[in-house]
Amino acid sequence: MKEVMDYIENNRERYIDELKDFLKIPSISTLPENNDDMQTAAKFVADKLQAAGLNRVEIFQTEGHPLVYGEWLGAPGKPTVLVYGHYDVQPVDPIELWTSPPFEPTIVGDNIFARGATDDKGQVFMHLKSVEAFFKTHGSLPLNIKFLIEGEEEIGSTNLSKFLIENSDLLKCDAVLISDTALFAPGVPTITYGLRGLCYMEVEVTGPSRDLHSGTFGGGVPNPINVLAKMISQLIDKDGKIKVAGFYDDVLKLSKQERENFKVLKFSEKKWGTAIGLKYLTGEKGYTTLERIWARPTLDCNGIWGGFTGQGAKTVIPSKATAKISMRLVPHQDPNKIAKLFEKHIKKIAPKEVKVKVTSLHGGYPVITPLEDKATKAGAKAMQLAFSKKTVFMREGGSIPIVVEFANTLKASPVLMGLGLNTENLHSPNEHFNLNHFQLGIKSSAYFFKEYAQ
Amino acid sequence: MKEVMDYIENNRERYIDELKDFLKIPSISTLPENNDDMQTAAKFVADKLQAAGLNRVEIFQTEGHPLVYGEWLGAPGKPTVLVYGHYDVQPVDPIELWTSPPFEPTIVGDNIFARGATDDKGQVFMHLKSVEAFFKTHGSLPLNIKFLIEGEEEIGSTNLSKFLIENSDLLKCDAVLISDTALFAPGVPTITYGLRGLCYMEVEVTGPSRDLHSGTFGGGVPNPINVLAKMISQLIDKDGKIKVAGFYDDVLKLSKQERENFKVLKFSEKKWGTAIGLKYLTGEKGYTTLERIWARPTLDCNGIWGGFTGQGAKTVIPSKATAKISMRLVPHQDPNKIAKLFEKHIKKIAPKEVKVKVTSLHGGYPVITPLEDKATKAGAKAMQLAFSKKTVFMREGGSIPIVVEFANTLKASPVLMGLGLNTENLHSPNEHFNLNHFQLGIKSSAYFFKEYAQ
Repeated sequence: MKEVMDYIENNRERYIDELKDFLKIPSISTLPENNDDMQTAAKFVADKLQAAGLNRVEIFQTEGHPLVYGEWLGAPGKPTVLVYGHYDVQPVDPIELWTSPPFEPTIVGDNIFARGATDDKGQVFMHLKSVEAFFKTHGSLPLNIKFLIEGEEEIGSTNLSKFLIENSDLLKCDAVLISDTALFAPGVPTITYGLRGLCYMEVEVTGPSRDLHSGTFGGGVPNPINVLAKMISQLIDKDGKIKVAGFYDDVLKLSKQERENFKVLKFSEKKWGTAIGLKYLTGEKGYTTLERIWARPTLDCNGIWGGFTGQGAKTVIPSKATAKISMRLVPHQDPNKIAKLFEKHIKKIAPKEVKVKVTSLHGGYPVITPLEDKATKAGAKAMQLAFSKKTVFMREGGSIPIVVEFANTLKASPVLMGLGLNTENLHSPNEHFNLNHFQLGIKSSAYFFKEYAQ
Repeated sequence: MKEVMDYIENNRERYIDELKDFLKIPSISTLPENNDDMQTAAKFVADKLQAAGLNRVEIFQTEGHPLVYGEWLGAPGKPTVLVYGHYDVQPVDPIELWTSPPFEPTIVGDNIFARGATDDKGQVFMHLKSVEAFFKTHGSLPLNIKFLIEGEEEIGSTNLSKFLIENSDLLKCDAVLISDTALFAPGVPTITYGLRGLCYMEVEVTGPSRDLHSGTFGGGVPNPINVLAKMISQLIDKDGKIKVAGFYDDVLKLSKQERENFKVLKFSEKKWGTAIGLKYLTGEKGYTTLERIWARPTLDCNGIWGGFTGQGAKTVIPSKATAKISMRLVPHQDPNKIAKLFEKHIKKIAPKEVKVKVTSLHGGYPVITPLEDKATKAGAKAMQLAFSKKTVFMREGGSIPIVVEFANTLKASPVLMGLGLNTENLHSPNEHFNLNHFQLGIKSSAYFFKEYAQ
């Protein structure tokens, strides 16, 4: 690997210059006026894949923005890795808060500032450049590789989902390598191996058939807001456990190893709370904050409304009150099953005086790659070699729907090797990417191909 | 009294014709384009007071619409009654739903249809006509009388409140006779002797200092909606009792007599519930629906909001959630004291992880005239004589702020001798007033003067 690593070191400046060219393209997927830029960005990626040494590169037009596909399958008997990423970026508003123009990449200290720097052009580019390093030094890769770089990640990946299902043979692989998440902290090699799922419900409570005067009727009729509030209070017990019967049945318990891995991170609950204005944290009894937000299911009201919500005093007893209530799920909870259990529980606790309507609005599966998975282990080893530091393992509390689709459609292990930082202003003005992490990412990518090939 | 009653009988048609003239004036207090009509209506009332026989009649201009005052103080040593009412009416929209034009009084069967027929021109007119009957038959009244007829009842009585305080000597009286409420049922003589008060609060719960992503933070932070819901659930116990410490301390217990009086009404809870879409009623344990809505204090959420309330699913943990919560009060609860107790309770049950702000938005005193009060008894006796039927006693669950102001400023007993019906479309299209009740109201008024004078 010495030649590969030397090549990466020696071409550091050129790699950065090429990344600048990539960042100059205003490939904002959501704005129609940037449609031509989307084609330009796709072409740029395709050209770079070709130049890196892949022997089949193709741009697939879709009903939206194009998908760029590339492959090199010259290592028979060896595993196949699919690299996924996206070349589209978020809009730049509010433009006046940028200290340098969003599409004029500017280096300040260790960081390169531009829209898309960390999300996701910089991270996509790492893998192109590690592939190039292999081809230029060895004329080949230690395994088979496929690239799938899309242009609609920021607008829901609609056409990718269709493409995945229709082209599962073309995309067949053993592992999906994705760099679109973050390091746990600067300079800390990190593998994200689990994501939470989601079950998002709406509960509507109807009391009287019309709004009533609280003077004339108050005290004699069920008030849907009071009833809904009481029902919500019956969803979580005093220890922070969710009271929906059967809710925890399929929850994968945190292993001793995982809890140890989280402890190693020396996460400061105090600092984390202070940043969001909280002196005291809460949650499920018996778990640390990291365990609660990464590996335990939750129940949160995301919205509630009913009655008079304007200024001042209106003495109404409303006919209806509604709440949006979502549960973050963990492996191996099934969002459809949880939706049914939730509805059953709500119906059970609803008093007979009111009518209750329960609607399922959205669901998503959780995902986890076992720590013992070959791809996960190779990812961790690779980062450790690149960073010369022990890799940490984290989970992510949110969902990344496309990861679940890859895992389920292609039956391949996702490896989330994110090199970004949550502080790098993704989706905000002054997005940036740390160029040291960019360099370490290229090396991590190269080591991964080597390690996973063995 | 025979002459008085005969006079009222013999002049029935003329009284109705004069009422028609009164109803033709479009005295809508809230619309600037009707300002001249307000003066016309005030003049009409003043003229009729003069014609009835009062010896001092005056129109007081205010910053808004004029107040009409009239008096006859020719019965020294006898009590003084102040008749209060209003000549202003509600707007007529939606005009297309009226079957006859709102200011062209139309008689259909026993009812006269026009805006203001029952609220309150028809009811005000009863007292003018009973006074006329006395003067025309006896040349005098059995007691001293004052009239105060305002033009701003439908828009908050702002100028009346000021006038009351500044002219308490002029308005000095022993009882205030008001006909602006309803009979319990058609043909049933009714005295309303109690009104509930109000304490209207707002509670704002703040969790994190900004809205958070429920994936990244969910499970580790206090959710203000969940917290607010739980707090609301801790305001009322399973028996429907309000848990605010000290809340019931000043509550006047329902007497055995009152409960008997309510029972006599043969109120159908089933019918009442069905009309508002409810198969099951709820409320404080140990009380009937009438007792709950008339004579027991309540706690109702009138509004709640927080987080995402649009269509679909947004995975947010909001920073804030807010509820409007009001309590209907009964004698002798003090709205200011209750506001303090409520705030104390809220602060006590708020978990330490959140910040809670409690604001008092509005308050109003309850009022009750004892059943043994001389004026109440005279009112009941008078209606019984007019209707030839036993008078029933009810309370009203809402507040009528001006009644409290009269009671408190003038230290006089209010007598609520309402001749309307809640089904007479007050504030709606096709408002009407039953002309039999109009006639019985004139007689009741006359008997009242006689009875109260003794």
